Amino acid sequence: MPDPALLETFPTPSDAPFVVEHVNEEFTSVCPKTGHPDFGTVTLRFQPAPAAQGGTCVELKSLKLYFQSFRAEGIFYEAVTNQVRDDLVACMKPAWLQVITDWRGRGGIRSTIRADHGDVPAHHRGA
Amino acid sequence: MPDPALLETFPTPSDAPFVVEHVNEEFTSVCPKTGHPDFGTVTLRFQPAPAAQGGTCVELKSLKLYFQSFRAEGIFYEAVTNQVRDDLVACMKPAWLQVITDWRGRGGIRSTIRADHGDVPAHHRGA
Amino acid sequence: MPDPALLETFPTPSDAPFVVEHVNEEFTSVCPKTGHPDFGTVTLRFQPAPAAQGGTCVELKSLKLYFQSFRAEGIFYEAVTNQVRDDLVACMKPAWLQVITDWRGRGGIRSTIRADHGDVPAHHRGA
Amino acid sequence: MPDPALLETFPTPSDAPFVVEHVNEEFTSVCPKTGHPDFGTVTLRFQPAPAAQGGTCVELKSLKLYFQSFRAEGIFYEAVTNQVRDDLVACMKPAWLQVITDWRGRGGIRSTIRADHGDVPAHHRGA
Amino acid sequence: MPDPALLETFPTPSDAPFVVEHVNEEFTSVCPKTGHPDFGTVTLRFQPAPAAQGGTCVELKSLKLYFQSFRAEGIFYEAVTNQVRDDLVACMKPAWLQVITDWRGRGGIRSTIRADHGDVPAHHRGA
Amino acid sequence: MPDPALLETFPTPSDAPFVVEHVNEEFTSVCPKTGHPDFGTVTLRFQPAPAAQGGTCVELKSLKLYFQSFRAEGIFYEAVTNQVRDDLVACMKPAWLQVITDWRGRGGIRSTIRADHGDVPAHHRGA
Amino acid sequence: MPDPALLETFPTPSDAPFVVEHVNEEFTSVCPKTGHPDFGTVTLRFQPAPAAQGGTCVELKSLKLYFQSFRAEGIFYEAVTNQVRDDLVACMKPAWLQVITDWRGRGGIRSTIRADHGDVPAHHRGA
Amino acid sequence: MPDPALLETFPTPSDAPFVVEHVNEEFTSVCPKTGHPDFGTVTLRFQPAPAAQGGTCVELKSLKLYFQSFRAEGIFYEAVTNQVRDDLVACMKPAWLQVITDWRGRGGIRSTIRADHGDVPAHHRGA
Amino acid sequence: MPDPALLETFPTPSDAPFVVEHVNEEFTSVCPKTGHPDFGTVTLRFQPAPAAQGGTCVELKSLKLYFQSFRAEGIFYEAVTNQVRDDLVACMKPAWLQVITDWRGRGGIRSTIRADHGDVPAHHRGA
Amino acid sequence: MPDPALLETFPTPSDAPFVVEHVNEEFTSVCPKTGHPDFGTVTLRFQPAPAAQGGTCVELKSLKLYFQSFRAEGIFYEAVTNQVRDDLVACMKPAWLQVITDWRGRGGIRSTIRADHGDVPAHHRGA
Repeated sequence: MPDPALLETFPTPSDAPFVVEHVNEEFTSVCPKTGHPDFGTVTLRFQPAPAAQGGTCVELKSLKLYFQSFRAEGIFYEAVTNQVRDDLVACMKPAWLQVITDWRGRGGIRSTIRADHGDVPAHHRGA
Repeated sequence: MPDPALLETFPTPSDAPFVVEHVNEEFTSVCPKTGHPDFGTVTLRFQPAPAAQGGTCVELKSLKLYFQSFRAEGIFYEAVTNQVRDDLVACMKPAWLQVITDWRGRGGIRSTIRADHGDVPAHHRGA
Repeated sequence: MPDPALLETFPTPSDAPFVVEHVNEEFTSVCPKTGHPDFGTVTLRFQPAPAAQGGTCVELKSLKLYFQSFRAEGIFYEAVTNQVRDDLVACMKPAWLQVITDWRGRGGIRSTIRADHGDVPAHHRGA
Repeated sequence: MPDPALLETFPTPSDAPFVVEHVNEEFTSVCPKTGHPDFGTVTLRFQPAPAAQGGTCVELKSLKLYFQSFRAEGIFYEAVTNQVRDDLVACMKPAWLQVITDWRGRGGIRSTIRADHGDVPAHHRGA
Repeated sequence: MPDPALLETFPTPSDAPFVVEHVNEEFTSVCPKTGHPDFGTVTLRFQPAPAAQGGTCVELKSLKLYFQSFRAEGIFYEAVTNQVRDDLVACMKPAWLQVITDWRGRGGIRSTIRADHGDVPAHHRGA
Repeated sequence: MPDPALLETFPTPSDAPFVVEHVNEEFTSVCPKTGHPDFGTVTLRFQPAPAAQGGTCVELKSLKLYFQSFRAEGIFYEAVTNQVRDDLVACMKPAWLQVITDWRGRGGIRSTIRADHGDVPAHHRGA
Repeated sequence: MPDPALLETFPTPSDAPFVVEHVNEEFTSVCPKTGHPDFGTVTLRFQPAPAAQGGTCVELKSLKLYFQSFRAEGIFYEAVTNQVRDDLVACMKPAWLQVITDWRGRGGIRSTIRADHGDVPAHHRGA
Repeated sequence: MPDPALLETFPTPSDAPFVVEHVNEEFTSVCPKTGHPDFGTVTLRFQPAPAAQGGTCVELKSLKLYFQSFRAEGIFYEAVTNQVRDDLVACMKPAWLQVITDWRGRGGIRSTIRADHGDVPAHHRGA
Repeated sequence: MPDPALLETFPTPSDAPFVVEHVNEEFTSVCPKTGHPDFGTVTLRFQPAPAAQGGTCVELKSLKLYFQSFRAEGIFYEAVTNQVRDDLVACMKPAWLQVITDWRGRGGIRSTIRADHGDVPAHHRGA
Repeated sequence: MPDPALLETFPTPSDAPFVVEHVNEEFTSVCPKTGHPDFGTVTLRFQPAPAAQGGTCVELKSLKLYFQSFRAEGIFYEAVTNQVRDDLVACMKPAWLQVITDWRGRGGIRSTIRADHGDVPAHHRGA
């Protein structure tokens, strides 16, 4: 089941603001209605808090294991997106953070869900 | 014939604002002038009202059945787009909603129609 | 020769604002200097005036015939673009309208001409 | 050697503002350091001054000959871009003008240089 | 090891503002945790200070050698990005500067890091 | 229901062998198990019999109407493909003929079915 | 665990030879060495035995469930490919059959495995 | 009207066999049934007869004028293809020659016609 | 330096012939003339000897480490390709084996080298 | 002017047959009729003679200088292709050799010329 305790962080290397994007094209969970697997891509974007304020970045391998913990979970698209955002905000306390999930489609319909935290810059809101 | 009663919803999982996009690449209706079938893609984007205000999301399978109910309907591009917007606004009462239809073309001309409801963010207005 | 009398309209189906885009990838006219044919794509975008104000949309087949009326015309890129804008504004009196022509190129140079009428939204001005 | 005297113009066909883009994918000059040829694409965008103010557009064949006049010139990327901008501004006195050069790369590095004149609209500044 | 002393500059050819972009698709360093090589693309964008203020541009071959000096370095994605920004700002003192690194991915996750200096125009902040 | 009587032909214009390919990207029928619509592309390739032997080509508009006659039919992918081959062979008696259907997919699986008649050349057998 | 008993068939609709291809882009199993999930695409091609000889085709939904039965299995790429071929040959006894698996990659290396049964036509052997 | 007298040739530069391909993406003629324009791409491939046997190549500008002579002609796809083959064979007497026409489509159906003369190599017969 | 001792194998899982392809897009070595790094893609294809004859497959992680052992080596394109073929043939003794290297280019020229061992099927010889 | 004396070779590293392909996307010469520059891509493929027979490979930098020697030459497409083939055959005496030139087009027509020497494998003859 989804396990935010898997997430680890390391101190941000800079006080100057910068932006990080991690894209996982190998996300899978299970549809709670039909029991069939869902497949999607998860995009995570964030600006770490400054080093002077104890800002952190999520460690890449721990992020991968966290995503893998959804593999057997029955969960809707909208809930995955909101939970990933909430878990990563809780662990990094970033300046801002954005989660976008793209799903390969069921019944001929492809879906994208986007959830923001904090003051996401306007140029990231369109995708 | 187009049947909005097919549409079902479920409560939005979050008070934090988020955005949903569903893309149906298998839409077909009939040209009321020639009787020939039209083929297109329908993109639906919306921000649900917050959970605390009774916000809802459209259920995916019901959306698919609603789109299929246009299959035998004689209806113009512009009318399809406006009706889909009105039916989905009536059923979800979202913070904002946008419908875009892209048509494969007749007589060498491809067409796109876009209809907005409420305060659609600027970054979605270009496509 | 270009014949705006070919253009027909029908009443817009809605008071709510919406946007229409028609793309004709089969436009051809003749270079007035060399007599060789030019080939291009014409993109037309507009927002009809509201139904309550007698707003109209251009009918698709009549638009196709209007574009075909340039087939034997000797006319520069810039003049085609300005004339199409003026003819369609005159026939529809839209809230705003934009015409973009993309030409396949002569002498190794590809060209694009864009002409706006009224308050074209910023997100359409870049292409 | 680069010869702005090759450039010819014709009167703009309209008082209404419109935008012209010419893309030459066959530009070549010579690296002044190594003597090896450089290959690139030159994009020119401008809004002619209004017809009532004597606005002009550059004639396409003269533009091609002007670009060909760089073929044997030893000149840096940055200098090409600034010179093309200055030569075309001097010949057309446009409302605004933009020159972008994209170079195929040397030593594994691709380069793009962009030079603006006047109040280039924001939507053209990103590329 | 990364060696900013390799960077050379030449005087900017213009007082008019212009923008330079260099893209190196052949960047490689080493993961400090696993010792495996990382592969990525580094994009550098900047506006030189005006010629009248002693503005300079980085010389292309020296930039290539500087990037090659990371080949054996064990260093995280985030640290590469911040160091390249700081080294280039120190050597050119540009009006503004932006560094974007795109990494081919480890464990199924692709990453992009973006670090800005000074007043980077809004249209460059989205990528 | 599928109606081969809609198919019309015209005499082939040549005794020299030549090959015709028609691709319809707007084919739709109905899944006989679920009642949901199927969407696909139908590719038809054939070599007409020589003019001297009374060879014919299928007329394009009649082919379109024939394909539209499957719109309400409940029929499997494999049966569509075999029926189209048999109907077209019966009406044209070509030197050889090939039908390929590509289906957009159900349950995450895309399908292609290929049925040949007569001595289809080797270079067409792979797709 | 992989369960060939899930596979169902239906009688082939024709005595004339034809070819079926099913592509599943949502295959996942587990690496037996590391325990991390593997993601790939499975392509199945076959020619059913003729109807007169009791030839059958695999039913699409049962094929999907069979592929899903690998989801928790620890198994190498090469073994997946050989097992899928053997299970499908046993259930359909086709004229010929081919299985191709494409894997998204581990450690920067993408892999493809191809296993044939019977006389696969030459034009299918290259991919 | 199509005018083969426009075609000019020049002597082939070599006795060694070689192959020439000319692709015209700007072909247009008129549908004899509807009077609407057709748009397509014409590909011409041939191997000139050896220089020692008086072999010739078609001159490029004359080929362009020949293709332009179809602009006002009402003629079917199949007839265009056979006529271009026959006219070019008559003027060049090549070792072999192939004409392929690709049409943008009418009524949702795209078409390709291919006509060969002489011993066209097998690797060119598939497209 | 290139170290074939890093290569490990495991027994092939089948007596039936099958084909394996591994593509490494992250290969780098050093040009022996200039000392600058080279970047390329290495494609390895082979058919293992049958299990009954002691056939083996190369283990994926060991293959990656073997490729990494070229990172500091000064070696020409042609020599890399021949050495990889020879090392892998020595370690696996496959039925046949093919190595293709694609190099990003130096001085504007991209290169591909292909080396075969044994009876590589014709359909693999073209790329 | 084209100067085959610029070409240098080095001994082939292997007796086993292998294939080399060099692609130069930055070729330019001059049209002898109009004096305008032509731009194209030159692809060179060959199999060196075995090392035991004194086989050689063309050196990459010398090949680049040889191609640059056509920069000011007035020469037809067909003649460029035949001359490159003859010059490289004379300098390397390869087992077989193939030259393909792709030209960006004049008057809306793109051209490709292919010239072979010796027994070029069938799979390379199609492009």
